Amino acid sequence: MALTAHSNWALLREQADLFRPAYVGIVNGNGGGGGAVGAGDLRVAPAGEVRRGQGTDCLVEAATRPDVQIVVNGIVGAAGLEATLAALECGKRVALANKETLVMAGELVSAAARRGGGEIVPVDSEHSAVLQCLAGRRPAELARLILTASGGPFRTWTPERAAGASPQEALRHPTWRMGKKITVDSATLVNKALEVIEAHFLFDVAYDQVEVVVHPQSLVHAFVEFVDGSVLAQVGFPNMELPILYALTHPARVSDTGTRRFDPLAAEALTFEPVRPELYPAYRLGRTAAEAGGTAPAAFNAANEVAVQLFLEGAIRFGRIAEVIDAVLASHQAADARSLDAVLAADADARARAREAACS
Amino acid sequence: MALTAHSNWALLREQADLFRPAYVGIVNGNGGGGGAVGAGDLRVAPAGEVRRGQGTDCLVEAATRPDVQIVVNGIVGAAGLEATLAALECGKRVALANKETLVMAGELVSAAARRGGGEIVPVDSEHSAVLQCLAGRRPAELARLILTASGGPFRTWTPERAAGASPQEALRHPTWRMGKKITVDSATLVNKALEVIEAHFLFDVAYDQVEVVVHPQSLVHAFVEFVDGSVLAQVGFPNMELPILYALTHPARVSDTGTRRFDPLAAEALTFEPVRPELYPAYRLGRTAAEAGGTAPAAFNAANEVAVQLFLEGAIRFGRIAEVIDAVLASHQAADARSLDAVLAADADARARAREAACS
Repeated sequence: MALTAHSNWALLREQADLFRPAYVGIVNGNGGGGGAVGAGDLRVAPAGEVRRGQGTDCLVEAATRPDVQIVVNGIVGAAGLEATLAALECGKRVALANKETLVMAGELVSAAARRGGGEIVPVDSEHSAVLQCLAGRRPAELARLILTASGGPFRTWTPERAAGASPQEALRHPTWRMGKKITVDSATLVNKALEVIEAHFLFDVAYDQVEVVVHPQSLVHAFVEFVDGSVLAQVGFPNMELPILYALTHPARVSDTGTRRFDPLAAEALTFEPVRPELYPAYRLGRTAAEAGGTAPAAFNAANEVAVQLFLEGAIRFGRIAEVIDAVLASHQAADARSLDAVLAADADARARAREAACS
Repeated sequence: MALTAHSNWALLREQADLFRPAYVGIVNGNGGGGGAVGAGDLRVAPAGEVRRGQGTDCLVEAATRPDVQIVVNGIVGAAGLEATLAALECGKRVALANKETLVMAGELVSAAARRGGGEIVPVDSEHSAVLQCLAGRRPAELARLILTASGGPFRTWTPERAAGASPQEALRHPTWRMGKKITVDSATLVNKALEVIEAHFLFDVAYDQVEVVVHPQSLVHAFVEFVDGSVLAQVGFPNMELPILYALTHPARVSDTGTRRFDPLAAEALTFEPVRPELYPAYRLGRTAAEAGGTAPAAFNAANEVAVQLFLEGAIRFGRIAEVIDAVLASHQAADARSLDAVLAADADARARAREAACS
């Protein structure tokens, strides 16, 4: 087992004491509370056999070790991408908790998996639901995916009222407790546009085979329709423990009594609504970028990240998020996304243009 | 291919002309419209190569032919049972559209399948749903089944009002169009008790692993909970085409565009309610008979058949159906059900006692 952290060496040491990995790595050994703390400070018991790494290289080193079978990757951004690609090239399973990887570099990641025989297993609830419904079936039997969206806190609002919503209002997610960025993405439905792109790469389906419905109760995580017209769904009270566990055990399952069992009698009535395009303009932009392909999804993702950050800082109104994304995509020159440099350039360019657009 | 019929030789000939089976059989060649029509009247083209059978033996003959891989069995009663057992002993798949087989002779059928390597695949919607959710998983990963029931036409009635319901009222099923007997069984929930027993034998689960919830929309056909707490469901607009098709193709699927695609946006809100024991006393009796085991399920089934027939003829009130079953089960001496003679004796005895109880 190998464990890595960005800069929280105290937590890493605690985890290493508990799990006794053969390798520990820290990307920024000088980060954290200000003191100069080097990797040498990671005193792990038993000390003798533990290899230590430092700097960004430690991620790839950890992810490609021969004793590692499954790489759980929750790293944000390009640093995580490199480790994912390396692990897939080595034929490992990557349990992916990071949406941006497939959105930015889906083609690269798919190619690496094909070449190395690796496998990407999703850790979020919607794609885990799809994977569970598909398990054991031939890809040719899949006809259509329907991902569900809670609709966020503005589901019943007018577009005009939502456009002026405060960060506090946007952060009041009805069903899931998550980080700020993803909670805002649920309010704009950008989150779901990113998931549509992920689904395209994870399950090798065309975009017109992936639909989204608003499901305010967040109990059905996805529907999968097969070629004979049958539909399976994965259902459960919102909880991340199961998708994480399933990513480790797929296609098998192991006993886990720690989560709250789904009980249809304890569930509210399950309702489904169409996505209202006038309320979620950023979602529509995401789908357009997806269809455009190449580096457009990377640009969409980068523009959204900048816009959401500015919204959370109080610099722009909620309604400006979609406008900023729209402006960036309108001027984006979509390029081939089969080179990491092209993807990273599109990302950087979109970020700069988004900041410009937000200030204009 | 082989085709058999009970006595409708005209339809059998029509089907034989269309599908050109290598074997045709008719159980009662003298039945039908009154004329003495023998098997010789089955003029099938091309005539030369078609074997013909007559009498009850033709069912076993058809079901055990070397050119037959899947036996679709929709025969009611003991005649169908013999063909099912013979087919399973020969290692064939039996697509079973007849609830009584497993309820009366579940132990015999399971033993025949184990001995011969045959396989029973259900054709009704609830068990097909379970099978679809389970496909490709190890039995040890199954934790719990939840079958859904529409609740029938009296779901919102008081028990007192339901007890006095007319056959016309009982035949007004809210979601499925079916035969009279099974429609009354939906109103009493006996149908669901029979399905619980079937599920026990089909999926090798204990009775406390099979729950039932009332789901008035009949869109979720079953839930399957796995040991890790995850729940899959099969969903669809009510339609028998899919379960029949899936029984033929399982575990694979083939394209079928003939059925109405499920669309969550076209569905009503999905709601779930507990089974109200005071409204469905016959259901509770069925579960008790199931737990008792041996010939008790056969007696339950026989008593119910007699009582429903008497209710449909206007001889007894709706509320008497459960009372008749109760009286029969109270006096039933449960025996070992691993002999066909014991099962048939229990069936005959329960029918006689049910008629007695109904008249007293």
